[in-house]
Amino acid sequence: MSEDRVVAVYRVETPYSLERAAEVIAGEQSTGTFTAVPGETDALKERFGARIEKIIELESVSAPTLPGAKTPAGHDGKYRRGLVAVSFPLHNFGPSIPNLMSAIAGNLFELQELSGLRLVDLELPEAFAARYPGPKFGIDGTRRLTGVYDRPIIGTIVKPSIGLDLKDLQRMILNVSAAGLDFIKDDELNANAPYAPLEARVKAVMETVDKAADVTGKRIMYAFNITGDIEEMERNHELVVKAGGNCVMVSIMSVGLAGLAHLNRYSEVPIHGHRNQWGMMTRSPGLGFEFSAYQKLCRLAGADHLHVNGLNSKFYESNESVVRSVQACLKPMYDGYATMPVVSSGQWAGMAPATYEATATVDVMHLAGGGILAHPDGAGAGFKSMQQGWEAAVQGIELDAYAEQHPALRRAIEKYGKG
Amino acid sequence: MSEDRVVAVYRVETPYSLERAAEVIAGEQSTGTFTAVPGETDALKERFGARIEKIIELESVSAPTLPGAKTPAGHDGKYRRGLVAVSFPLHNFGPSIPNLMSAIAGNLFELQELSGLRLVDLELPEAFAARYPGPKFGIDGTRRLTGVYDRPIIGTIVKPSIGLDLKDLQRMILNVSAAGLDFIKDDELNANAPYAPLEARVKAVMETVDKAADVTGKRIMYAFNITGDIEEMERNHELVVKAGGNCVMVSIMSVGLAGLAHLNRYSEVPIHGHRNQWGMMTRSPGLGFEFSAYQKLCRLAGADHLHVNGLNSKFYESNESVVRSVQACLKPMYDGYATMPVVSSGQWAGMAPATYEATATVDVMHLAGGGILAHPDGAGAGFKSMQQGWEAAVQGIELDAYAEQHPALRRAIEKYGKG
Repeated sequence: MSEDRVVAVYRVETPYSLERAAEVIAGEQSTGTFTAVPGETDALKERFGARIEKIIELESVSAPTLPGAKTPAGHDGKYRRGLVAVSFPLHNFGPSIPNLMSAIAGNLFELQELSGLRLVDLELPEAFAARYPGPKFGIDGTRRLTGVYDRPIIGTIVKPSIGLDLKDLQRMILNVSAAGLDFIKDDELNANAPYAPLEARVKAVMETVDKAADVTGKRIMYAFNITGDIEEMERNHELVVKAGGNCVMVSIMSVGLAGLAHLNRYSEVPIHGHRNQWGMMTRSPGLGFEFSAYQKLCRLAGADHLHVNGLNSKFYESNESVVRSVQACLKPMYDGYATMPVVSSGQWAGMAPATYEATATVDVMHLAGGGILAHPDGAGAGFKSMQQGWEAAVQGIELDAYAEQHPALRRAIEKYGKG
Repeated sequence: MSEDRVVAVYRVETPYSLERAAEVIAGEQSTGTFTAVPGETDALKERFGARIEKIIELESVSAPTLPGAKTPAGHDGKYRRGLVAVSFPLHNFGPSIPNLMSAIAGNLFELQELSGLRLVDLELPEAFAARYPGPKFGIDGTRRLTGVYDRPIIGTIVKPSIGLDLKDLQRMILNVSAAGLDFIKDDELNANAPYAPLEARVKAVMETVDKAADVTGKRIMYAFNITGDIEEMERNHELVVKAGGNCVMVSIMSVGLAGLAHLNRYSEVPIHGHRNQWGMMTRSPGLGFEFSAYQKLCRLAGADHLHVNGLNSKFYESNESVVRSVQACLKPMYDGYATMPVVSSGQWAGMAPATYEATATVDVMHLAGGGILAHPDGAGAGFKSMQQGWEAAVQGIELDAYAEQHPALRRAIEKYGKG
């Protein structure tokens, strides 16, 4: 029997002592039930029980974050917070993401002994790497396919998100291809919709991508949203690959980590992982899942690209949190499992310096919708402004100073920089 | 083009007016971006835009529930709450659960204009019924397979949750079969674990189930936990069916709704749907997903049985919420889609009257771990006490009065009733 263990780190809030909370977590997720049953021996607990590895006490608060916690007799009115690391024997569930989730998350979020619980980190033994091969393309493969090196891959999103007819979509692709963009993706709202079935869309898009490439000499990477039921996703992937497509996108929460891992078994092009719906799992600070932990599972399951929001986005997330996500994605797992963080939402050229300063890398995809397409001088200037923003960032030159000699950037600052 | 629309109802909290919040929701999830782009015409918005159907103002609060909301200029300090119904044209995404989720949930939970968002109801057009056939067995099929009518299906969970060797597991099955139980399930922690691979477990269990049935004349329903990656789940299902097994269980959040729908395409026995991890989506009252809405998707995707917690459980959930879940599961969808609510956690005979009073049905599975197995007179008396609890409930007789003539129930009350 392997000695391998999975370690899960939780941010806990409890009206009990942190030690008691940790024991309840460990018991609930291994051998326990609410009343002792025959057979729950010490030997069994020793071999299969979860183990408390570490408890770090943090602050206390005077009101519970989540509803439904019970309080101990003589409760002092305090809700204690802390970090609790619990380890689980791998032989309890094996290197299986679905069964890992039942063990490390399971019923924990519902326990009355807790008034807050958030999964903040996860250490997984090598056996997971043997079972899940991870991204097939990652950063290197995506650079190879796009021919873009030494700077972020700059792209956009089909806008309006939904409703473009095929002719307008083709017009848009010609436009962004002529503008020189590296990448374009379907909106997450737009997959295999009855008003524009994927088959017709793939045909129309790839014809145009190829036609544009003949003119520009550069073939844009197009991420087709193939999100769907398990069999449909397989058919959709085949449609894309047969038409010469070079990227597929899925909404990870829609298809599940199991769906993503399944796709990764047969995929022949990079998988662009969109994280819509993720807010549901993470916006309450006392509940859910920290993205820096979740992204490990996405990488194991095969996401070549992974959305992380962007600095100053239109979303609630703090810049610090976005930076943590980018850094987490760039930290190697096992022998690599490199995924390309996708910085997106409310982006334009002016976000490059802060993004670079915080992450010290150009190994990101930087996507802008309006920030490229609505540039006053058109998409070509929008694309150029993004490149110039990154040049300024990498060279450590003040954005406004750099803009003096770079009109595309200057015009971008005029339009987007005063918001 | 069909006129069908999906209606999603949200409980919203916002520092803006509810009207403004509703507009942001509708815009974000159909045609919008943060700055106007060419092509977002009125005609396009009319055909593809989400529509605000209803706004019901509720209370206001003075502090935001979720972090990261921005406030309008001159904010009056109030965060307004209300119900907002938004409808989406079905042709935007089609009758696809994965793409439905991207539309009705998507990025909404991350919006700065909202300080709270919870999806509380969902109306889905007929097209979903055509695409997703739903439970193959449901209540009727489960009763047929177990031979139990006119009372709840009474069962237990393999305990200790994890670590039993095959001999002890066989001993337990003989014990519960001799005790007369209708049903037993694997714990959600226990699937295809290296310490006891499913193949060996299925063989050992089914041999014992059949052996016991030869003696008792009643064949217990055993729900094997086949949770796993997509291909593994298919292999696991085949193992169970080939061995003559009569039920499989999956952790729905582990395999995803897409994984569940996939299983439902080839499954030959009832699917016991476990909802562990669900707390992550629902315990924060200002965020996430209400189970009464989520259960519709589980039923579409094929859950024959569906866990709903239990009254007075060891979990945070209020009894009112549990009752709402049971009632939601029992409400017909389309032409049926009947699923059997599974009342579980901290259960014993004494929970029957309140459960029956609140739900007015015996079409539930009632599971007890310690509440049956740790009965002072053994599992047989534990099972009997559960039946007697329900007899008292249905006949409207006070539990203590009924217990006077029913020793199994009386002993259960003595042990569990004083907690």
